[in-house]
Amino acid sequence: MIHFYFDFSSPYSYIAAQWLPKLAADHARALVWHPILLGAIFKEVGNQSPVSYKLKDSYSVMDFARSARFEGVDYSHPTPFPVASQNAARIFLWLQGSHPERALSWAQTVWRAYFVQGENISETATLRNMAQTFGLEGTEAQEVIADDTIKALLKQSNEAALEQGVFGAPFFIVDGEKFWGNDRRAQLAAFLSGKA
Amino acid sequence: MIHFYFDFSSPYSYIAAQWLPKLAADHARALVWHPILLGAIFKEVGNQSPVSYKLKDSYSVMDFARSARFEGVDYSHPTPFPVASQNAARIFLWLQGSHPERALSWAQTVWRAYFVQGENISETATLRNMAQTFGLEGTEAQEVIADDTIKALLKQSNEAALEQGVFGAPFFIVDGEKFWGNDRRAQLAAFLSGKA
Repeated sequence: MIHFYFDFSSPYSYIAAQWLPKLAADHARALVWHPILLGAIFKEVGNQSPVSYKLKDSYSVMDFARSARFEGVDYSHPTPFPVASQNAARIFLWLQGSHPERALSWAQTVWRAYFVQGENISETATLRNMAQTFGLEGTEAQEVIADDTIKALLKQSNEAALEQGVFGAPFFIVDGEKFWGNDRRAQLAAFLSGKA
Repeated sequence: MIHFYFDFSSPYSYIAAQWLPKLAADHARALVWHPILLGAIFKEVGNQSPVSYKLKDSYSVMDFARSARFEGVDYSHPTPFPVASQNAARIFLWLQGSHPERALSWAQTVWRAYFVQGENISETATLRNMAQTFGLEGTEAQEVIADDTIKALLKQSNEAALEQGVFGAPFFIVDGEKFWGNDRRAQLAAFLSGKA
């Protein structure tokens, strides 16, 4: 089993989500998707987004694009960046519980909207339109976003992640072994092959 | 030309320094070694050592060892960690200016002492012994460490690095393209091969 922690506003999570399903399948490992909110995680850990630090900010924007290119993934750096991703995550969690076969497709729809088409996935109107195109009922997305139980579920997902030692995204936990970052792909693959 | 910025107290710098010379030679690129002090760099950038953040601390200690193993490099996490590395860096800068053919050998001696043998390279007595074993004259290391011109040189090396956008170590700059981290090895290699 591979636990995959991701944030919809995280470029490296988006990139990792493109290669991870095949890697998991190649090693016959189930993949468990855990949406988290980096804002809340960073607050707990005491750090910030890489784009919040002097010098690291412009480097990171360049590195997002280069890392995407390196993995053969489409990427266009969105503005604004980063954005609040809790509403997209709530719809994901609701789908996991109610229409699990559609959850992953929603995740890729959100990432594509933000990191390829440049849509602002933090805006309710944008999300509602995306949800309708995706095939949800008229007010369904809006109800999910406002639902207290779903809100609590996302909060619990974040707290559970912190309890497992997750301090950033993407984050992978396999057989208790932790890997942080899209750039740990080779080490994760080596671990799954029993070579590390 | 590949500009390589490193700190003697940085595990990822030490690991990168083991594979970088061959990579540079394979691509017929001169390698320029720039010692920096991460403490001063972090202060300017506004962040801290990875071991200063909650949750990230224990992960990082594990990842130093795993990343070393992944690259086939000996590693034993030292205590205390991190340590002040300016004295080792001053001797390196002095050697670059006076005995350039010995500077790289000194760098590897320092890294091996700290990351393999567990010696505290911040202690003057330890450095003096290391310098004598290395073949420097009795009080030479001590004089270098206390020399105002050498001190200024290291400060300038740090400031020049910041001016180039260096915010961490190891850091590589090739033809204006920046790479941060031992984990950018594959992307750096692709860039040198003209594939990225």
